[in-house]
Amino acid sequence: MQHDPPAPAIVTLTTDFGTQDPYVGSMKGVMLSIEPRLTIVDISHELPPHQVLPAALLLREACPRFPESTVHVAVVDPGVGGNRRPLLLRAGDRFYLGPDNGLFSFLVRDFGLQGAWRLANPEYFLPAVSRTFHGRDIFAPAAAHLARGAPPPSFGPQIEDPVLIAMPAARTTQESLQGVVIWIDRFGNCLTNLSEELVSNWARGAPVLVHAASKRIGAISDCYDAAAAGEPLALFGSTGLLEIACNQARADRTLGLREGGPVTVWKERKQD
Amino acid sequence: MQHDPPAPAIVTLTTDFGTQDPYVGSMKGVMLSIEPRLTIVDISHELPPHQVLPAALLLREACPRFPESTVHVAVVDPGVGGNRRPLLLRAGDRFYLGPDNGLFSFLVRDFGLQGAWRLANPEYFLPAVSRTFHGRDIFAPAAAHLARGAPPPSFGPQIEDPVLIAMPAARTTQESLQGVVIWIDRFGNCLTNLSEELVSNWARGAPVLVHAASKRIGAISDCYDAAAAGEPLALFGSTGLLEIACNQARADRTLGLREGGPVTVWKERKQD
Amino acid sequence: MQHDPPAPAIVTLTTDFGTQDPYVGSMKGVMLSIEPRLTIVDISHELPPHQVLPAALLLREACPRFPESTVHVAVVDPGVGGNRRPLLLRAGDRFYLGPDNGLFSFLVRDFGLQGAWRLANPEYFLPAVSRTFHGRDIFAPAAAHLARGAPPPSFGPQIEDPVLIAMPAARTTQESLQGVVIWIDRFGNCLTNLSEELVSNWARGAPVLVHAASKRIGAISDCYDAAAAGEPLALFGSTGLLEIACNQARADRTLGLREGGPVTVWKERKQD
Repeated sequence: MQHDPPAPAIVTLTTDFGTQDPYVGSMKGVMLSIEPRLTIVDISHELPPHQVLPAALLLREACPRFPESTVHVAVVDPGVGGNRRPLLLRAGDRFYLGPDNGLFSFLVRDFGLQGAWRLANPEYFLPAVSRTFHGRDIFAPAAAHLARGAPPPSFGPQIEDPVLIAMPAARTTQESLQGVVIWIDRFGNCLTNLSEELVSNWARGAPVLVHAASKRIGAISDCYDAAAAGEPLALFGSTGLLEIACNQARADRTLGLREGGPVTVWKERKQD
Repeated sequence: MQHDPPAPAIVTLTTDFGTQDPYVGSMKGVMLSIEPRLTIVDISHELPPHQVLPAALLLREACPRFPESTVHVAVVDPGVGGNRRPLLLRAGDRFYLGPDNGLFSFLVRDFGLQGAWRLANPEYFLPAVSRTFHGRDIFAPAAAHLARGAPPPSFGPQIEDPVLIAMPAARTTQESLQGVVIWIDRFGNCLTNLSEELVSNWARGAPVLVHAASKRIGAISDCYDAAAAGEPLALFGSTGLLEIACNQARADRTLGLREGGPVTVWKERKQD
Repeated sequence: MQHDPPAPAIVTLTTDFGTQDPYVGSMKGVMLSIEPRLTIVDISHELPPHQVLPAALLLREACPRFPESTVHVAVVDPGVGGNRRPLLLRAGDRFYLGPDNGLFSFLVRDFGLQGAWRLANPEYFLPAVSRTFHGRDIFAPAAAHLARGAPPPSFGPQIEDPVLIAMPAARTTQESLQGVVIWIDRFGNCLTNLSEELVSNWARGAPVLVHAASKRIGAISDCYDAAAAGEPLALFGSTGLLEIACNQARADRTLGLREGGPVTVWKERKQD
C-alpha cells in the first residue's frame, strides 16, 4: 500500500475557516500526527465563507505554481454532513482533496483530469468522523496518508463525474464584450471574467476601449503606474484576467465597483 | 543537559499578537536562531487581546491534535512584566509554555498535570529580557531549547499550583439547563459552555428543545444542512459543545446573539 | 555557480498582499518548485498597502532575529513595472530581496551595507516576467536560487546607491523633544520615532514628563501594568522606541492618537 515519495512531501491548505478559531490548527495537528515530516503551506484561510467560485479561482491561480506531487487540500464546504462526496482528484500531476462541489473545476479545465476517487476508506480518516468538520476528520488525515505514499486507488472507488462549475460567461456582440467583476483583491483591484485570450480573439487586433461602472476607463495599459496616482486604468494583471485598477489607490472604492459589476470592452472606432 | 528528541521537533504558536506587527516574526526568528531545523506551526494569532478564556478554549481544542512531544507556546499575557510566573507545563505528553494565568487549564483538566516548572534559568532566555515582550525574550527561546532536548527540570523550580480557570458554569434545574455563548466563530456559529456530555447526563434520554436569545430553535440536529438555508439550528459541533448555527448564514447576526448571550435546553414535555 | 549552504535554508516573506488573494501562495509555490527543502516563514502580509516606512520599520525589528544567511524577501512595491530597480542586498550577514525603494534602509543604517546588486539575470526569474507581480516572477525565484547557493554577484551588476529613507526626524529644543506616532500596533499601542538612545542623550539624566495628543501622560514607566487598568502610560517598548500605551486597553482610542500624532517629552522641571 505504500510507495516512497521524494521527501519532503508538501501539503497546502486553502479554506474559508479564518485563523481566529481552532479549525486550521486542528487540521495541521492531525496531519503532523500522521506524518511529522510534512511541509505544510497555508495558501489562504480568508476565502469568503461558503462560496465555491472565488475559491476555485484562487486554487487555479496558486496551486499550479507548486511542484508536481504536491497535495492540495481545499475546504469550502457549505454541504458538509450532507450528500456531497469527499473527493480526491489528480490533475497536472498534482493532487487535490476536498468536497465534490466544483472547487477544482478550473484546474480540471486547464490541466485535464487524471483521475478522481471518492474518499471512502475509513483507514485514512480519523477514528470518529463528525458531521460538521470533514476538514479535520476526513480531508486532513487523507492528505497526510497520501503525502506519505498511499496510492490514490486505495482511498475509494474511482468516479467519472466530479462536479464542475464554469466561469460566469461573457456576453459578446460585434461591438462589445461584456464581462463582470469576479474578484476584488486586497488592493481594491477588480478582476473580471475577461481573459487576455478571450479579449484578443474577440478584438482581432482592433484598438479597444474599456468602460467600468458606466465610466470610460480608457485603453488597456501595461502596468499600474501607466496612470497618474489615484487614477483608474485597465490592464491584464498577473492572473491573465482583465482588471480595473487605480495606481496606488482602490479601484473598487474610487469607481464604486463591486463583485458582479459590469466591465465592458468596446472596439474603439464604434465609441469615440 | 541534552537528549536527542526525534527530528523534526514541532513548536506551535498561539497568541493575541495579530500578524500586522513584527511580534510573531521576531519570535520565529529567535527560535530558528537557536534551532534552525524546527517545524514552526501557527495555530492562531487572532485571539481577542488580553482575554484568557477564549485562548484556553482554543488551546484545548487544537493542541491535543498534535503529536506527542510537541512544544506548544501560548502568549496571551495581560500581566507581562508584573508578578505572574512564566510557566512550562507538561500534560498529555505534550509541552506548554506561556504565562501562568490559566491558559492551559482545560488541558490540565482533561489530560492531567505531568509537571509544571517556573521558567527561571536565564541560559534559556535571550541575553536581555524586556519587561514588555516575554514572548520573544523568554517563551520563544525556552521553547526552542526545550525542542532541542533540554530537560524540563533544567528550566527552573518545579511548582505545584499553576493558575487554573474554570469554564463558566451552567445553571441546572429540573426543567432547564441554562448556558451561555462562550465563542463566536468565523462563520457566526455560537458555541456554548454546554458540552454533549453535560446535556446527555442531564436529559437522560428525554427529548430536548433549545432556546437561544429568547427564540425557539428546536431539537438538536446532526449537521448544518438539517435546517433550510438561512435557518437556525442547534447541534453539537466539532468541538463537542452545543452550538447555535444557521445553515450557510451567521447565527450571531440572524439571532442577535453575542458572547455571554443565553442558550437554554428544555426538557421538551415541559415546554410544548 | 553553486556553493553548499547549511541546510535547511530559511526564506522569510514580508508583504502588503494580505492573505485572501492567491499572491502569497503563488510566491510560495514558485519557491518550493525551485527548492522543495526551504523553510518558508511568514513575517507579515498585513502591512499597509504601498507604504514603505512601516514596512521598513517592521523589517528592522524582525529580520535581525533570524539566523545569519537567512534570505528575507520583502515586497511593498508601489512602483512595480516602472523604473525602480529590483534589488539584492546584504547586511549583517543576512540577505534581502525586494524593490529598491528604501525598504531595507534601517537595516543598512544599523548593520552596514555589505553589498547590493541589481537583479538582472533572467536565469533566476520565472520564464515570463509580468509587469504587475515581480514578487512572484522575480523576487520569489531569485530568493529560492539564492537560498540554494547561487552567489550574489551572479544575480546582476553591483550597485553603490540603493535608495535609503530616513526615520521622520524629532524636533529638539532645550525644553522639549517633539516626536510623532509612526506605528500603531494590534493592541493600540502608539510607537513613536523617539528611541531610548535619543531620549537619554537629550535628557542627560534629568527627569522627564511625556505628553501625547495634548494630554499629560506622566513619567516613563517600566511595564504596562505600571498604570491601572485602562490608564495611559509611556514606556520604551520591546522595539526600543518610546511608546504610548494603556494597560489592557487601546491607547489610540483612549487618547484619540493617530499615526503622525504628536508625542512630546519635556524636562520635568520646566513643566510642573
